Amino acid sequence: MCLNDEIMENRFINFIAGNFRKSPLKLNNIHEADAELIDIGRADGNLLAITTDSLAEEISSGLYDEPYLAGWMLVVANLSDLAAVGAKPLGMLISLTLKESHRNSYIEKLTQGIDDACRQAGTYILGGDTNQGETDYLSGCALGLAAREKMITRIGARPGDRLYLSAPAGSGNIFALTKFNGHDKYADSIAYKPSPRLDDGLFIRDHANCCIDTSDGVIHAVDTLMRLNNVKIILNNNWEDIIDHQALAICRTLKIQPWLTLAGIHGEFELCFTTGRDRNDEFIRAAGQRGWSPILLGEIQEGSGIFVRQGQNDIPMDTTTIRNLSFEANRDVLAYSERLLDLADKSKIE
Amino acid sequence: MCLNDEIMENRFINFIAGNFRKSPLKLNNIHEADAELIDIGRADGNLLAITTDSLAEEISSGLYDEPYLAGWMLVVANLSDLAAVGAKPLGMLISLTLKESHRNSYIEKLTQGIDDACRQAGTYILGGDTNQGETDYLSGCALGLAAREKMITRIGARPGDRLYLSAPAGSGNIFALTKFNGHDKYADSIAYKPSPRLDDGLFIRDHANCCIDTSDGVIHAVDTLMRLNNVKIILNNNWEDIIDHQALAICRTLKIQPWLTLAGIHGEFELCFTTGRDRNDEFIRAAGQRGWSPILLGEIQEGSGIFVRQGQNDIPMDTTTIRNLSFEANRDVLAYSERLLDLADKSKIE
Repeated sequence: MCLNDEIMENRFINFIAGNFRKSPLKLNNIHEADAELIDIGRADGNLLAITTDSLAEEISSGLYDEPYLAGWMLVVANLSDLAAVGAKPLGMLISLTLKESHRNSYIEKLTQGIDDACRQAGTYILGGDTNQGETDYLSGCALGLAAREKMITRIGARPGDRLYLSAPAGSGNIFALTKFNGHDKYADSIAYKPSPRLDDGLFIRDHANCCIDTSDGVIHAVDTLMRLNNVKIILNNNWEDIIDHQALAICRTLKIQPWLTLAGIHGEFELCFTTGRDRNDEFIRAAGQRGWSPILLGEIQEGSGIFVRQGQNDIPMDTTTIRNLSFEANRDVLAYSERLLDLADKSKIE
Repeated sequence: MCLNDEIMENRFINFIAGNFRKSPLKLNNIHEADAELIDIGRADGNLLAITTDSLAEEISSGLYDEPYLAGWMLVVANLSDLAAVGAKPLGMLISLTLKESHRNSYIEKLTQGIDDACRQAGTYILGGDTNQGETDYLSGCALGLAAREKMITRIGARPGDRLYLSAPAGSGNIFALTKFNGHDKYADSIAYKPSPRLDDGLFIRDHANCCIDTSDGVIHAVDTLMRLNNVKIILNNNWEDIIDHQALAICRTLKIQPWLTLAGIHGEFELCFTTGRDRNDEFIRAAGQRGWSPILLGEIQEGSGIFVRQGQNDIPMDTTTIRNLSFEANRDVLAYSERLLDLADKSKIE
C-alpha cells in the first residue's frame, strides 16, 4: 500500500480508519470500492451496497449557489457510488443541517432537487433528520442491492485491459473553474446537472474487470485504479472524444489546457472501468446493442504511474502532486485553481 | 395529525418531507418509528432498520468538548434508534467533517470513542467519508435487522397501558444544564456516557405495544407517544425512582426542579415504552428473570395531553411550549436553559 500512502487524503483516511475493526460481513477492504459491500445473509445472494457522501464546501464556497442544484447533487453523489458497484438503489437517508436564515423558498427548491433526482433514478428518500446550524451541511446515505456473483469493485484491472469512460467528461471541473473565476456565463452554459449512471453500472458489472466513478474527477479515478491494482495507465490524448464538447469549447475560448478538465477534483459522475483483452469485442458489441458508445480513455500496462500518449511518446503525469494539491490548498478554492493552472503551464502534456 | 402540527420541529420536518414520495418498501410512516423499517424482500422475514443522526451543535456549543465523548455519542445516538425498533445492528457508516486545526491527538480520541462504542455494542464501522470544514460536523447512519413479525414502532399505546422507562433518566439534561452554566464539577460527576439499550430493545419488542428512545429527553418522548397515539398520559411524580440518583442529588444541591431533567432536549438514550394491561404481569415476571427492573413512569388514558399525578390531582404539563422552546431559542443554549428554568418556576408541578 506504499503507492497509496503518497496521497495525503488516503493517508488521512487510513489514519482514521486504522482505529476501526473490519466487520466480518464486509467483503471489500478500505479504498477498494465506491460503496461498501455487506453480506447480510440473503438467500438470493444479493449483497447490501451502502455509501455516504456529504456536501458542505460546495455550498459555502458558492459553487452550488442554487439550492435545487445542491439537492440534486446530494442524491447524485450518493447514487453514483451505487452505480459504480453495479447496485440497484433501495433508497436514501438524508441529514440536512440548514442555516436559520434560509427562507422557505430555499428549502422548497432544495427538496425539489432531492426529489427530482430520486424520481429520475426511480428511488426514494426513506428517512432522515434535520437540524439548524451555523452553515449548511447536507449528508446522505444510499442503500442498494448488488448481485454477489457479479460483484465489481475498483480491484481487477490487469495489463492489457482497455480503460473506458461511460461518457465524455470534464463538465464538472469546467463548471467549477469558470464559476470560481467569475465566468458565470460559461458556468451557466455548461448546465451542470449530472445523473448517476445506474443502468450503465448494471451493464458494466457483466463485462468489466473493475469500476470507479469520477466524482472527484477523471484523474483522481484513474490514479486510484493505478495504485490499487499496481499497474501503469496510458491515457489517450484525443481530447475531442474524451472531453465533453461544451467543456472543450470553453477551454479553447479561455485558453485552458483541455486535460485540466480531467485533473480537477470537481467531477461529473461518469463511470471509469476496464475490460479484459479477451472480453473487449463482446463488450463493444453488447454496448452497441444497447445504443451506447463508451469512450476509450486508454490502456493498462505493467508498471506504475499515469502517462499521456502524445504521438510516439508517453509523457508522465504527476498525479501524486495533482491529487495532493486540493488537500494542501486547504479549502481555498481560488488558490487551488491557480495552482492547478500553474501546474498545467509547466507540464509537457498538451 | 393536527396534534403533531403544534410542534414546530414536526411542522418543519413535515414541510421538508412533504415533497418526497413514500417508498413502497417502507413500512412505517413519518414520525412513527425511531428507525425506518424497510422490506428488502428477505426470505427470513427480517426487515432492514436504518437511521441517521448527526452531531454539530453539541460540539460547537462546548457540550461535547471531549473528542472521545463526541465519538462515543455519534455511535450511541444512531444505535439507540435501532434499539427502539428492536433491531440488531449490522454496522454504521460515518461522515466526519473536521476543522483543519485539529491535531492528530483530537482525531485519535474521537475515533477511539467511536470504536469503543461500536465494540461495546458488538458492531462495526462499515465505511464512511471524511472532509475538512469550517466547523466540526459528525454524521452517522446505522443499519440493522429487525424481525418483521415482532415489528415495534411508536404506534400502539392504548388506554390502560402502563408506561415504562428502561432505567432512571435525567442524566443527559443535568449534564447539559450544569455544563452550560459553568458547573463543570457537577457535569463531571455525572460521567455522562450512555449506552444504546440494544438488549433491552430485543426484550421489549416481545412484550410492549410501542417504543421510542429518550434521545431528546423523556418529555419529548412521552409527548411524541401522546400525539401519535391520540391518548392522554399521566406521569407519576416519584422522582426518586424515575430520575437518576446523581442527577437528583445535583438538582437538590442547585435547587433545580427535578422534573426539568426530563423536560430538556439533551436526553440519555433510555427506552420509553408501554405494555398492555393484560400482558403486564407476564412482562414484569420476564423482566425479573433477566434481572431487570424497568421504571414505571405512568399510565395511558383516553383523552389527550400530558399530566403529572400529585396526590389526588393531575397537573397539566404544557409539553407543546416545552418542546417548542428549543426550536424558538434558535441554538442559543443559555437562552434555552433560562427559559426552561423560568417555565419551571411558573409551573405547579413539583
